[in-house]
Amino acid sequence: MVRSPKILELNAFDAASGVRLEPDTENLIGRRQRTFGPSSMLFYKRPLHIVRAEGVWLIAADGTRYLDAYNNVPSVGHCHPKVVAAVAQQMGLLNTHSRYLNDGIYFYAERLLGTMPAELSNVVFTCTGSESVDLALRIARTLTGGDGVIVTQNAYHGNTSAVTEISPSSASTAPRNPDVFLVRAPDTFRGGTEDIGAAFAASVRSAIASMQARGVKFAAFIADSIFSSDGVFPGDPGFLAATAEAVRDAGGLYIADEVQPGFARTGEAMWGFARHGVVPDIVALGKPMGNGYPMGGVVIRPDLLAEFGSQNGYFNTFGGTPVAAAAGMAVLDAIASEGLQENAKTTGAYLLDGLKAVAAGAPVVGDVRGCGLYLGVELVRAGSEEPDPGAAERVVNAMREQRVLIGTAGLHGNILKIRPPLPFAREHADMLIDAFAGAVAQP
Amino acid sequence: MVRSPKILELNAFDAASGVRLEPDTENLIGRRQRTFGPSSMLFYKRPLHIVRAEGVWLIAADGTRYLDAYNNVPSVGHCHPKVVAAVAQQMGLLNTHSRYLNDGIYFYAERLLGTMPAELSNVVFTCTGSESVDLALRIARTLTGGDGVIVTQNAYHGNTSAVTEISPSSASTAPRNPDVFLVRAPDTFRGGTEDIGAAFAASVRSAIASMQARGVKFAAFIADSIFSSDGVFPGDPGFLAATAEAVRDAGGLYIADEVQPGFARTGEAMWGFARHGVVPDIVALGKPMGNGYPMGGVVIRPDLLAEFGSQNGYFNTFGGTPVAAAAGMAVLDAIASEGLQENAKTTGAYLLDGLKAVAAGAPVVGDVRGCGLYLGVELVRAGSEEPDPGAAERVVNAMREQRVLIGTAGLHGNILKIRPPLPFAREHADMLIDAFAGAVAQP
Repeated sequence: MVRSPKILELNAFDAASGVRLEPDTENLIGRRQRTFGPSSMLFYKRPLHIVRAEGVWLIAADGTRYLDAYNNVPSVGHCHPKVVAAVAQQMGLLNTHSRYLNDGIYFYAERLLGTMPAELSNVVFTCTGSESVDLALRIARTLTGGDGVIVTQNAYHGNTSAVTEISPSSASTAPRNPDVFLVRAPDTFRGGTEDIGAAFAASVRSAIASMQARGVKFAAFIADSIFSSDGVFPGDPGFLAATAEAVRDAGGLYIADEVQPGFARTGEAMWGFARHGVVPDIVALGKPMGNGYPMGGVVIRPDLLAEFGSQNGYFNTFGGTPVAAAAGMAVLDAIASEGLQENAKTTGAYLLDGLKAVAAGAPVVGDVRGCGLYLGVELVRAGSEEPDPGAAERVVNAMREQRVLIGTAGLHGNILKIRPPLPFAREHADMLIDAFAGAVAQP
Repeated sequence: MVRSPKILELNAFDAASGVRLEPDTENLIGRRQRTFGPSSMLFYKRPLHIVRAEGVWLIAADGTRYLDAYNNVPSVGHCHPKVVAAVAQQMGLLNTHSRYLNDGIYFYAERLLGTMPAELSNVVFTCTGSESVDLALRIARTLTGGDGVIVTQNAYHGNTSAVTEISPSSASTAPRNPDVFLVRAPDTFRGGTEDIGAAFAASVRSAIASMQARGVKFAAFIADSIFSSDGVFPGDPGFLAATAEAVRDAGGLYIADEVQPGFARTGEAMWGFARHGVVPDIVALGKPMGNGYPMGGVVIRPDLLAEFGSQNGYFNTFGGTPVAAAAGMAVLDAIASEGLQENAKTTGAYLLDGLKAVAAGAPVVGDVRGCGLYLGVELVRAGSEEPDPGAAERVVNAMREQRVLIGTAGLHGNILKIRPPLPFAREHADMLIDAFAGAVAQP
């Protein structure tokens, strides 16, 4: 079996590791590798064979229940019965593209836009966050006439050709697009007492200046406001306002990638940008939007869309179908009727406190941070700020053995990424805290 | 209301036309324009408000049933009960990304790959045809080290930034990518008695030579083998073999876009390339794959995928989920158990003959052609080869008033595109032929 490439996440299965697996698992891995190829990545040293899910639980073939503290796609809970019913019902009724009139999709569009600032009153539906960011980029480049884009050092925004170029975390040996300029993520752990908002805005201004010095016209700044892939740096509310100002001063567009913070995950707001009092020019939506039904969207100022649309065609066959609308509507309903934003806030705060309490006695933990149900735990060489990716790998796999599933993030892979479905309750937080305490206590 | 741009299809609704509409329709159009913006296109001079669908029927709010001879996404029939049941059941059970083991997705991958030539034994799942073509292009460019791509003059391959650049039919005022070279589609109508295979291969060889003369390295040729958007030119089986040879001779990769001909539509084979005895290097799948559930895929030689994967990350969150697998499996089941390939062949031939019989007495019809359930009818100034887009616009809208839905294609928009769901039966063909006869008889 071919060894997976360097871009493999640290917590991934490695066929060359010689780890002992059940025959059933071995067999499935063989079938997977024969059809998907050897570079297709599986989570954990001992991969999971999952057959069922509900709420915050993933259930393996042997009946073991794993607490899901990783997946943000099934945001209102795995197999949410109302989302499943809405999709099933609409799929049996009508599922066409949007070139016929259908009121379901306009109801959903109106409801979704109702959660946005008044300035953002148009939407273009897509199928994935990648398609959303790709379209957002294309619009920004077309309208500004520039190609220059600023992203953070280890950002991930999706998988199309254009979006891979602005996703430095998708490591590649291909030459980087020279029009893409990187800034450091706002590292609240290593930043000390500095004003992180002013410092980050200054780094964006400086990147714009470098860009212009090289003759590249500035098109857009894009970030997810949690800086998820950089290592989870939500920072204090409002700190991105200065950056938005820097972007506008230079004639660029501010694109908010809401694939990570959007749909109430931060607890403080429905949208990540709203925590910062920023009104973006373009918002890209994806993952949690349909709770697993593939859907995404670009929410945009109508003047920008009209200008783009007057000279460019865009049509997305599976985007904005009545079934997508039904899924999206059921998700918005669940967030509202089940109080999931409030739960993200209170359970998130409880979890943060619990993890901090454990961290106080664990020198390998350098920092615990988070916002709502998006948390990061930075593992370091004891007493230093030096990243310890090996510790992250051990903790993630130890917690998996304790039936609690999390992931890793960051340029060095040393940050634990905790991002459960939103119906995560206090009892689930307690389980996670216990497993975390056990894992960091191990040598 | 802003007038829609020039890229609007000829058969589209135009708010400035002053056409009289029902109040319900007016109201929906208003809501649509406020949320989607003015450039979002609706089919037909008098748009349809569709609320339900089954088999080959679209049913409007007022109960009128329209015969669908346009939509290839609901390929095994609108709201196919077995596809709906498979999706609903799996959605209630498990719907995660593919980084856990799950046998449903490997079963589906094995079954899908079983319909492909033995050389094409790996698959990467995506969510849309656009994502598939985008990935195919990225792989071709990465592996060849070239950027040069050859497409036909009015091709459409999808909507991402990179794919729009190889989709000249997505008219745009943006400068064209200088690495994209265009060849004329194999026009069997105007080609006279020439050997269309030899002529098309020669044009591809010539494009490769022009490319090399300009210092651009050749990466790939891509076509859908029906040349759908160019105006529906399926040609005789086998004619693309010489082109595949020309592509390989120059060190390029042959990408088959199966979004249009794939999944049995041509009647002669499961895949468009198979009609030609060509084994592509990469196959892009989309639209009909999940009968409306958003899914796509790239089928590829394993040596190419391994080389690409050794240095590049690619992960698609919604691609290859257990729900996508369930939808895809139900589609393959329906094609096999309902004899849809055979039906495409026999009903397609019957429809072709019927349309030709009408055409014999209609000077506005220059050519009727097709393969299986993919037909093109070329409308011209009587007795000439000169395209008549106005006639196409009239015929499409007249047929819509007769409750039969088709579309247009081609560089000039003068070709009727007939592409119904595959359970289209002889009685449906008869209805279409009658409506066509009535429409072309009108002044």
